[in-house]
Amino acid sequence: MIHFSINKAVFLQALNTTKRAISHKNAIPVLSTVKIEVSNEGITLTGSNGQISIENFISIQDENAGLLISSTGSILLEAGFFINVVSSLPDIVFDLKEIEQKQILLTSGKSEITLKGKETELYPRLQEVSTSNPLILETKILKDIINETAFAASTQESRPILTGVHLVLTENQTLKTVATDSHRMSQRKMQLEKAGDNFDVVIPSRSLREFTAVFSDEIETVEVFFSNNQLLFRSQNISFYTRLLEGTYPDTDRLIPKEFNTKVTFDTAHLRQAMERARLLSNATQNGTVKLEIQNGLVSAHVNSPEVGRVNEELDTLSVSGQDLMISFNPSYLIDALKAVGSEQVEISFISPIRPFTLVPNTNQEDFIQLITPVRTN
Amino acid sequence: MIHFSINKAVFLQALNTTKRAISHKNAIPVLSTVKIEVSNEGITLTGSNGQISIENFISIQDENAGLLISSTGSILLEAGFFINVVSSLPDIVFDLKEIEQKQILLTSGKSEITLKGKETELYPRLQEVSTSNPLILETKILKDIINETAFAASTQESRPILTGVHLVLTENQTLKTVATDSHRMSQRKMQLEKAGDNFDVVIPSRSLREFTAVFSDEIETVEVFFSNNQLLFRSQNISFYTRLLEGTYPDTDRLIPKEFNTKVTFDTAHLRQAMERARLLSNATQNGTVKLEIQNGLVSAHVNSPEVGRVNEELDTLSVSGQDLMISFNPSYLIDALKAVGSEQVEISFISPIRPFTLVPNTNQEDFIQLITPVRTN
Repeated sequence: MIHFSINKAVFLQALNTTKRAISHKNAIPVLSTVKIEVSNEGITLTGSNGQISIENFISIQDENAGLLISSTGSILLEAGFFINVVSSLPDIVFDLKEIEQKQILLTSGKSEITLKGKETELYPRLQEVSTSNPLILETKILKDIINETAFAASTQESRPILTGVHLVLTENQTLKTVATDSHRMSQRKMQLEKAGDNFDVVIPSRSLREFTAVFSDEIETVEVFFSNNQLLFRSQNISFYTRLLEGTYPDTDRLIPKEFNTKVTFDTAHLRQAMERARLLSNATQNGTVKLEIQNGLVSAHVNSPEVGRVNEELDTLSVSGQDLMISFNPSYLIDALKAVGSEQVEISFISPIRPFTLVPNTNQEDFIQLITPVRTN
Repeated sequence: MIHFSINKAVFLQALNTTKRAISHKNAIPVLSTVKIEVSNEGITLTGSNGQISIENFISIQDENAGLLISSTGSILLEAGFFINVVSSLPDIVFDLKEIEQKQILLTSGKSEITLKGKETELYPRLQEVSTSNPLILETKILKDIINETAFAASTQESRPILTGVHLVLTENQTLKTVATDSHRMSQRKMQLEKAGDNFDVVIPSRSLREFTAVFSDEIETVEVFFSNNQLLFRSQNISFYTRLLEGTYPDTDRLIPKEFNTKVTFDTAHLRQAMERARLLSNATQNGTVKLEIQNGLVSAHVNSPEVGRVNEELDTLSVSGQDLMISFNPSYLIDALKAVGSEQVEISFISPIRPFTLVPNTNQEDFIQLITPVRTN
C-alpha cells in the first residue's frame, strides 16, 4: 500500500511530461490513466497511447523532490483528473497514501482529497527494448535534426511510410535523416562524434515531435536503443518508447539534382515575409501558387487571384546567376523550408519550371538540403 | 477615389479595435467588411455585427499616425483578410490608393498588393443616437462595474431579458447596476460624481464585455448617450453603439435579504482556491455541489463523488458568528463571485440551508452585494 510525500512542483513536472504520452480519448480506456509505481529507490510514472510510451523516474536521491517513501506499491489513476487535483493542492508538499484497496488519500495543508484508482494489473505491458550497446547522441543535435526534417513528412495516411522520418546510420558514423511527403523533401546528413551499430529505421514524425517536447535542453545526451519494431530514447530519468513504421522507405537519394541552370541567394527572413504576403492571396487562387520571375538579375514574386486581388513584389537578393526563369509553387512549402533553415541566407537552385528546386543554407552546402516540387501552370 | 498614407502600427490598432464588432460568419455578408471613409479631417473605420457597431476615427492631427490624405472617398474591404494583408506589409508606413473602381493598391517597401473592395452603398445605415446632453462616466469606474456584475447575467436565451445587465440612474446621481441568471445575482450601487438624466436600460452583457475590451485604460472618460433602443459610448476617437434589450427587468431589490443567522469572514484568495479544489470533484457528482459545514466556529467544505473520490477541507476563516449551518451550492457560482470581489476579505451571510446567501467585500458593505441560491440536498 503506497505511502510517500514529495514536493508538489517536482512531481507535477514529471506528471506533465508523462502526460504527453497519454490521450484523454484513447480507444483503450486504461490508457487514459497514469501508472504510479513506488519502489524503495523512487517513483516511476508511466503513460502510453499505444504508439508512444513515457516512463519518468523520480529518485529518492533527487534533492529538489524531497521524496520520502514510507511504503511501496503501485496504482493507476485517471491522468488528466489527477494532474488537476495535484495542481490545486494548497501546500508546496503533499502526502499520498493508499488508505484502502486502490483508494488514495492526498493530504496537503488542511486539504484532504480521496481519489479512486485501479489495479496496475489492468495496464498493458509495454514492449521491451534490450538496453545494451546504446547509440549516444547529443540531445540538442537530435532535436535540431528533427526540427530540420520532420515537418516535411506526410500527414496523410494514404502512404503510411511517408508519415515517418527515415534515419539511416552507415559506416557506423554517417547519419542521414530524411522526410518527404512527395511534394517536398528535407534531408540532413552528419558525422556522429561517437560510432554506433549501423541501422535503418522509419520513426513516426509525430513521435519525434513529442520527443523534442519531452526532452528539455538541460538533458545533454540521450541513449538510443532499437528492437525490431520499437525505439527507445533514454536519459537519466526519462525513457521514451516509440513504435517504428514497417515497410521500405523510398529511395530519396536519386531525387536530388546535381546540376542547375539558375541560382539565387536570398536573405532568409526577407524571403519568408514576402512568401507570407504572397500566401495570403495565393490561398484564394485556384492552384494556390506564387509565381517567381527571374529576369535580368531581378527576382520578383506574383500572385493573381481574380476574386481577391494581386501581389507584385520585387524580392531582395544577394546574388543571382544563370538563366532567366519563371516557376510556380505553393508558397507554404517554401515558408516551411525557410523556417527550418537556421542560417541568415539561403541559396535556391533551379533547373527548369517543371523540375524540383533545391534550397540549402549558405553556411553548409553539403549537409542540409531541401527539395520543393513546382506546380505546372497553364 | 481614396488616397492616403499612414503609419502601419497606428492604422492596425484602429483596425483591430473596429474588428471586435465584426463577425467573420455574419448572416449578412456585407457585415464581414470594414467600412473605410476618408474625409479631409481623417479616416473613419466602421465595423458592425448588427448588435454592436464600432466607429474608430484617426485624425490628420494625430502625430503618431503620420496621416497624409491626398484624396477622399469610401470603400468596403473584407475585414479579416484586410487586417492580415496590412499586418504583413514590410515597411512601417504604407500607401493606400484606389486605382480603379473599388480596387485599392497597397504599397509598402517594394511590395505592391491590389485588393478588391465593394461600394459603401451596400453597407447598412447604423442606428443614429442623438448626441446631446451626455452622461459622463470615468472609464475605469464603468469597467469596474461591468466586471463586478456582467458575469452574473444569463447566457441562455430562454429568458432574453436576463442576458442583459440592468442599469438604472435615479435621483440623477444614484447608479444601480444588476445582473442575474436566476441562480445568482450581483448588484453594484454608486453615487456618480456628475449628475445626469435618469434612465432605466438593459444592455446585453456581451456588449458590455466588448466595451471593456475596446476602451483602453488610457481613455479617461466616456460620454454615454441613449436613444429608444440604442446606447452609445463615445470617447474622443471611438464611438461604440449597442442595441438595448426590450422588456421589463425583474424587480431584484426584493430578493436581497436583510437579516441573517450566520456570518463568516473569509480570506478571498484562500476560499477561492478551496472552492476550485472542491469543484474538481463536484463536477463528477450528480448535483454538482459542495457542502459547507459551519459548526462550533469551524468551517469545512465537503464533496463526495461515489465515482471519483472525496474532498474534505477545513477552511481558514477570519471570523465566524451565529448559528451552526450545513448548506450545499454550486462552487462555480462562489468562484465567479469571489473573482468579482476586489477586496482581500469577503463576508458571507446565511439565513438557512434553503435561502440565498449573500457575499459582500468587507471593505464596502453597502454598495456591492452578491446573492447565491443554494441547492437542496437530502
